[in-house]
Amino acid sequence: GDAAAGQAKAAVCAACHGQNGVAQIPMYPNLAGQNEAYLVSSLKAYRSKERNGGQAAVMQGQAAALSDEDIANLAAYFASLPAGG
Amino acid sequence: GDAAAGQAKAAVCAACHGQNGVAQIPMYPNLAGQNEAYLVSSLKAYRSKERNGGQAAVMQGQAAALSDEDIANLAAYFASLPAGG
Repeated sequence: GDAAAGQAKAAVCAACHGQNGVAQIPMYPNLAGQNEAYLVSSLKAYRSKERNGGQAAVMQGQAAALSDEDIANLAAYFASLPAGG
Repeated sequence: GDAAAGQAKAAVCAACHGQNGVAQIPMYPNLAGQNEAYLVSSLKAYRSKERNGGQAAVMQGQAAALSDEDIANLAAYFASLPAGG
């Protein structure tokens, strides 16, 4: 994925996952430094609505509009951020 | 949750999520420093089989045997580890 292209798509993510990928809301996961392949897998599981439970409905809605390329780019971006902010 | 009790239960987690909560396998998420409430939510969603997709079947099996107390303790333990290892 292309981290710069991912960053350009990531503004909406910051509301829950933080400007630096560290969530300010305990129910939401930190994304900074997460493994890229895992982030791709997660976004695809939300998009396909296989992933439920917790706050998954929020992410199902967000992921619905993402292409495979968007997902790859977003995953590259968040994986590139330093873990812990 | 009780992080020390969680650590005592976490040996099996290390195979995929790393001794320090940083996964060596790209398809698996890092857990170190993840938000405690999110980890509780995730483990419960695996246990209830609401969470599917990706490698979720592995975690459904692992979570099946966990009590609410186990989940609280494991979440406290991984949240307590420094993000990034």
